[in-house]
Amino acid sequence: MLKAQIKVLLKQSVLDPQGQAVEKALGALGYNNVEKVRVGKYLEVTLAENDLDAANKQVQEMCERLLTNSVIEDYTFTLVEV
Amino acid sequence: MLKAQIKVLLKQSVLDPQGQAVEKALGALGYNNVEKVRVGKYLEVTLAENDLDAANKQVQEMCERLLTNSVIEDYTFTLVEV
Repeated sequence: MLKAQIKVLLKQSVLDPQGQAVEKALGALGYNNVEKVRVGKYLEVTLAENDLDAANKQVQEMCERLLTNSVIEDYTFTLVEV
Repeated sequence: MLKAQIKVLLKQSVLDPQGQAVEKALGALGYNNVEKVRVGKYLEVTLAENDLDAANKQVQEMCERLLTNSVIEDYTFTLVEV
């Protein structure tokens, strides 16, 4: 079986108010060296599939169709054996 | 500068209804080989800090204090140069 570890972030050009809120909160806690915070989603999808190429293609398709919004989000993923 | 890439997931023992919803939705789209889906948070925190050990300690502390809820969530992070 293969597990896809998918990271989804808003595109750089899209405002990230949640990230800004976290950034301010960290500053308020005394962390003055925080330059930037971006907040996104993380998904782990386990597939009953052993072929790396097939899994790669499928995860990409699932991201495009359901898991991410390609207008405002970017995603990257890695596949690991489980 | 160093960027922390932080992945946060609910602990295995905690119910993940969002993950279950995504799992069902993928099934409904015809992906019958999806075994399990977990949904969590992904954060990128950029620090004006070049010392790897100091950054490591700081990110861990920020995770414990603000970014994650250690009662129900697990986190892992990696530091990359930016």
